[in-house]
Amino acid sequence: MPDVGTGSVAVEELRESALKQSRAHQWVQELTDATGPRMAGSPGDAAGVAWAMAKMKALGFEQVHAEKVSVMHWTRGVETGEVLSPTHHRLALTALGGSVPTPPGGVEAEVIEVTSIEDLQHRLRAQVEGKIVFFSAAMQTDKDYGRLNPIRGNGAVESAKLGAIGMVMRSLATSKARFPHTGMMRYQEGVAKIPAAALAVPDAELLQRLAANPPLRIRYILGCAELPNAESANVIGEVRGREAPTEIVLLGAHLDSWDLGTGALDDGAGVGAVIEVARLISLARPHPRRTIRVVLFANEEHGLEGAKAYAAEHSSELALHALGLELDSGTERVYGMTYLAGANAPSIIEEIARPLLVLGIPKPVEAQHHGADLIPLRQAGVPMAHLQQDGTHYVDFHHTADDTFDKIQPAALAQVVAATAVVAYGAAEAGSRLEPIPESQRGLPK
Amino acid sequence: MPDVGTGSVAVEELRESALKQSRAHQWVQELTDATGPRMAGSPGDAAGVAWAMAKMKALGFEQVHAEKVSVMHWTRGVETGEVLSPTHHRLALTALGGSVPTPPGGVEAEVIEVTSIEDLQHRLRAQVEGKIVFFSAAMQTDKDYGRLNPIRGNGAVESAKLGAIGMVMRSLATSKARFPHTGMMRYQEGVAKIPAAALAVPDAELLQRLAANPPLRIRYILGCAELPNAESANVIGEVRGREAPTEIVLLGAHLDSWDLGTGALDDGAGVGAVIEVARLISLARPHPRRTIRVVLFANEEHGLEGAKAYAAEHSSELALHALGLELDSGTERVYGMTYLAGANAPSIIEEIARPLLVLGIPKPVEAQHHGADLIPLRQAGVPMAHLQQDGTHYVDFHHTADDTFDKIQPAALAQVVAATAVVAYGAAEAGSRLEPIPESQRGLPK
Repeated sequence: MPDVGTGSVAVEELRESALKQSRAHQWVQELTDATGPRMAGSPGDAAGVAWAMAKMKALGFEQVHAEKVSVMHWTRGVETGEVLSPTHHRLALTALGGSVPTPPGGVEAEVIEVTSIEDLQHRLRAQVEGKIVFFSAAMQTDKDYGRLNPIRGNGAVESAKLGAIGMVMRSLATSKARFPHTGMMRYQEGVAKIPAAALAVPDAELLQRLAANPPLRIRYILGCAELPNAESANVIGEVRGREAPTEIVLLGAHLDSWDLGTGALDDGAGVGAVIEVARLISLARPHPRRTIRVVLFANEEHGLEGAKAYAAEHSSELALHALGLELDSGTERVYGMTYLAGANAPSIIEEIARPLLVLGIPKPVEAQHHGADLIPLRQAGVPMAHLQQDGTHYVDFHHTADDTFDKIQPAALAQVVAATAVVAYGAAEAGSRLEPIPESQRGLPK
Repeated sequence: MPDVGTGSVAVEELRESALKQSRAHQWVQELTDATGPRMAGSPGDAAGVAWAMAKMKALGFEQVHAEKVSVMHWTRGVETGEVLSPTHHRLALTALGGSVPTPPGGVEAEVIEVTSIEDLQHRLRAQVEGKIVFFSAAMQTDKDYGRLNPIRGNGAVESAKLGAIGMVMRSLATSKARFPHTGMMRYQEGVAKIPAAALAVPDAELLQRLAANPPLRIRYILGCAELPNAESANVIGEVRGREAPTEIVLLGAHLDSWDLGTGALDDGAGVGAVIEVARLISLARPHPRRTIRVVLFANEEHGLEGAKAYAAEHSSELALHALGLELDSGTERVYGMTYLAGANAPSIIEEIARPLLVLGIPKPVEAQHHGADLIPLRQAGVPMAHLQQDGTHYVDFHHTADDTFDKIQPAALAQVVAATAVVAYGAAEAGSRLEPIPESQRGLPK
């Protein structure tokens, strides 16, 4: 039988303190005002590491340190786009992360519109060769993100396989605001690297209308560049456990951001919330049995190098990780909880999660959700919990210039802090530890 | 006693046709897709004149012609901004229309924040000299536009009078989306011309926070230019009246737009709606007594030269203008009607407006509202009507890159068409003409 013991009063006090006194929004403001964008390898990224170190020390966390991580260093540069025919228009677009640049004069070609990678793969090479492929698939709700993001990841490769010289896509966006949404793309050994960009939704819809009057020709210029790897760091701080300090409840978020906005939602909100959870737990007396470890990962957005480095650096203690939980979904309220762990999990998790009911979060269910930075930990079997946040508007702002501090909702973020504090404290205090994820469930979904 | 006569059935049919069959959104799409931005003097402006001529001819309007107008020709060029201290940030900003450029390397100085022109005028020259003045006043609702737009118009002049070398302002905006909002500004003879820009709201709020940790230094570069005047045109088409064709009901909108978006809301929506009203009335049998004249004005945004040229060109027939009505408030529904005319107006207007009740528009009231292009007609005494549209979100998009076709709401715009058609038809059919605006009310408000 799990036992939250004397913790059951403590955890409710903790939850109420979070709702009333959360400073998570203040940490997001300080972080984003002090750093601006925190693209891996950039001056802002380094400023983020410095800010996080200083903040965790100032809050009295223990074992505060940075663990060096070598990160990809890609820079954006100039980006312009225009329709050349049937009529002239400027296009709002942005390079996908990792794209090669265009030649200085840009790429210019006729456009072929496809809706999906499958649609593209059924086209003849003669239809695609020498053209710019335009993926026009539209997100209807935030739930479409997983279904459509392979276009961003693989669309350039699949286009190049059929001879395309460029690839543009409708942004993965749930708003019609005229912001292009960046995000990571990949190339493939042996396939030509073509420059790839995302169009703001109004511009993608314009192209769809103009495509009815062919030939539709566009030109775009991307001045991005891949530089030698740079140094960044995972930043770590702890609230040491009173009885089993070597057992770790890991609260993760990522310190890096895309470069267009200031990454207030992605993932300043997560950073602010996990720091605040640790701060509130540090004030609790007694501390919970196990250690709360805040890990602010480097370069989640563009390679997960921080996550990989953490798992490698801490491989010998992964068996002692009692739980991993990452916040990386913005500022809105938690509406559900999932978990993935061993056979003893259901009853322990149910007990841990009981104080979430008053926050509107029902009994957790087993599922494969977790933050991207936890992938290597999952592969090592570390038990996972995930708090599901309302994502209705998250992808309005995600990876755009509009991801700025003013989008933070302090009251909603306080509820996220409260829910996270309940789970962290409960997992750190529970009488029995969750058993590891079974081998058969450690691979990636699908 | 006013008489809408056989028109009372016709006007209700017209209203219902508009609600069910309005093509106004289609005209907005065609216009914006064919032209892009239509800044006075630009290629898009010329394309707008050509589109409007062709469209009115294709719809069978009579007397379709363009009347040449010499317009200011200002171009934008590069624009960048950054915070230099206390921390580095990029700023989203845009030149105000008519601003002088900065030197190629930009203007760079410490920032002094003021909330209003009055606040500025109470500062000492020593506080302002050599600095960049930052106006931080925030719109709370769309109703604040009139109160705050003197900052845009006169803020640079008032700053320069105290020795400032630059002026930036929080955009006049009702959304926190990270779009700077442009708009016209003015210089004054004998006062130094300093470069003036609007900051996106998130960037203005950032400056306000950073100002707490002085010195706050920024730099911005504006590459705008004032070119020699260019040629544009007012585009005019008519549905000739059956009994009194020399008497004119003028339906106005402006064909030009700012250059950042495609001017779908400002004023593509107005252009589409007045064309559609005339098309629907042209299909009515019999035509109303008086002539419906559509006037698409040149360069409303940056000098009102089209409005002035129209009044001059048509001075001899202004006494025969039975009514002037301009649409220049976007895509949302009409909730009210106002008018300004002579002593016989109340009963005539009430009769004309009766078919608006079912559209949710109550009995009109006398007020000084009307479109900017009607200022010269008002000065000549031409009776004015104005349809008040819901502006809750208009200033979310106004004068930004985000003013694009996807923001048009076809059903709401159909209601605008229906309301406008009712007023136009009623004024063209009424037994008695409205008397002119009394001399005492022909000046501008305040």
